[in-house]
Amino acid sequence: MTIAFEDFIPQLSIDCVIFGYQERKLKVLGTELAFGEGLWALPGGFIQQEESIDEAAQRILEERTGLTNIYLDQFKVFGAAKRSHANYLGANNPLESGAITQLNLSANDVNWLNSRFVSICYYALVDINTVSLRTSALDLNISWLDIHHLPHMILDHAEMVPAALETLRQNLDQKLIAFELLPETFTMRELQELYEAIFEKEFPRNNFQKKILDLNVLERLEKKFTGAANKAPYLYRFKRLV
Amino acid sequence: MTIAFEDFIPQLSIDCVIFGYQERKLKVLGTELAFGEGLWALPGGFIQQEESIDEAAQRILEERTGLTNIYLDQFKVFGAAKRSHANYLGANNPLESGAITQLNLSANDVNWLNSRFVSICYYALVDINTVSLRTSALDLNISWLDIHHLPHMILDHAEMVPAALETLRQNLDQKLIAFELLPETFTMRELQELYEAIFEKEFPRNNFQKKILDLNVLERLEKKFTGAANKAPYLYRFKRLV
Repeated sequence: MTIAFEDFIPQLSIDCVIFGYQERKLKVLGTELAFGEGLWALPGGFIQQEESIDEAAQRILEERTGLTNIYLDQFKVFGAAKRSHANYLGANNPLESGAITQLNLSANDVNWLNSRFVSICYYALVDINTVSLRTSALDLNISWLDIHHLPHMILDHAEMVPAALETLRQNLDQKLIAFELLPETFTMRELQELYEAIFEKEFPRNNFQKKILDLNVLERLEKKFTGAANKAPYLYRFKRLV
Repeated sequence: MTIAFEDFIPQLSIDCVIFGYQERKLKVLGTELAFGEGLWALPGGFIQQEESIDEAAQRILEERTGLTNIYLDQFKVFGAAKRSHANYLGANNPLESGAITQLNLSANDVNWLNSRFVSICYYALVDINTVSLRTSALDLNISWLDIHHLPHMILDHAEMVPAALETLRQNLDQKLIAFELLPETFTMRELQELYEAIFEKEFPRNNFQKKILDLNVLERLEKKFTGAANKAPYLYRFKRLV
């Protein structure tokens, strides 16, 4: 593998907190790094000189998920003074040894990767069923991680997840983005379970239903087929504005 | 003047939307650039290799306002692909001519300044009466600008002001930061006028007063001395948590 680092802005990276929802739990996408077994990271990358930062984030996401045009928002820049692999990993820095052999990097490339980076963080919401996970050249594995039991993450990546979750919670009322995490149609119970997974608390059923219906953003469809017709819940769909 | 550009992260800048409040109007601090008369900018600068991005923002603000420890928050990163002075100013780019002579820059320095920059934007709220404006080596003038009548601004700086205002409005309820714009004590009417200046609409007086008092964040002090004792309004102070 050869990466032409001179095509990218130095010392500036993008990292993505990609939320999915599965088995009533909020998950986040992580990659195990090719140059350091057991070292995990959020899906990230660098910014080409000829692309905008938003285009870079979309490209990085597409590389790992196959998805285009997904909901993506900047939420924070991480820029501590000593934010480098060299500083965080110290004597155990696999970039010094593993990367040179496994990734076929030059000494210049390793210096580039070991320098201080400022990272622009985005968060994304995806319907987990539509994602085709793929590893990039820098990844050994890619998988959905439990947000409360993250493996060993590089740099400050473990801090990015709760920061993204806080932004998601703040934005949820105003931006009605939770629907991005669900399939096209869903029951009221499924929607409530999603909100409960995000806020980590229970909502009274009647209040929740009234609050959501009052927003006037849901379209009610036919009843879900369950076999027992009279107890079947209605399916809903989010009224898309465009 | 000599700036040692090699001490800074290349292609990455910080720009600050500094809000003040004066004569019932929201103002923003701007600087006229030393290398281009009539060209204005938001107070900005670069990030030293040895400082965090938040430290850089505080330093940049202190250089222009004399203030330390002021309320400062990241709100957006501007990162269009062609975001450079060379691209925005074209043939009239005073960096090519004016800067070399007036600022005593080398050709390398000019190339550094003309490259594509990604800018991390912060907004700050200051009590305009406590500020001592100072120009930096890059500024010809510095002054408070009417947010609705900005002069000719470099790059996308004119877009940063409404983006910061939108964030300020969104954050105002949750973070109770409006008090940063006021002197230590104020009347209820003065507080309402500030909110009206920020949101650009009028609030019914009784509703506003009830809403603010219900937040339980104000401490009522003695009446303001006006000469006419029975009509004098109460003064309030924000209960600081620390």
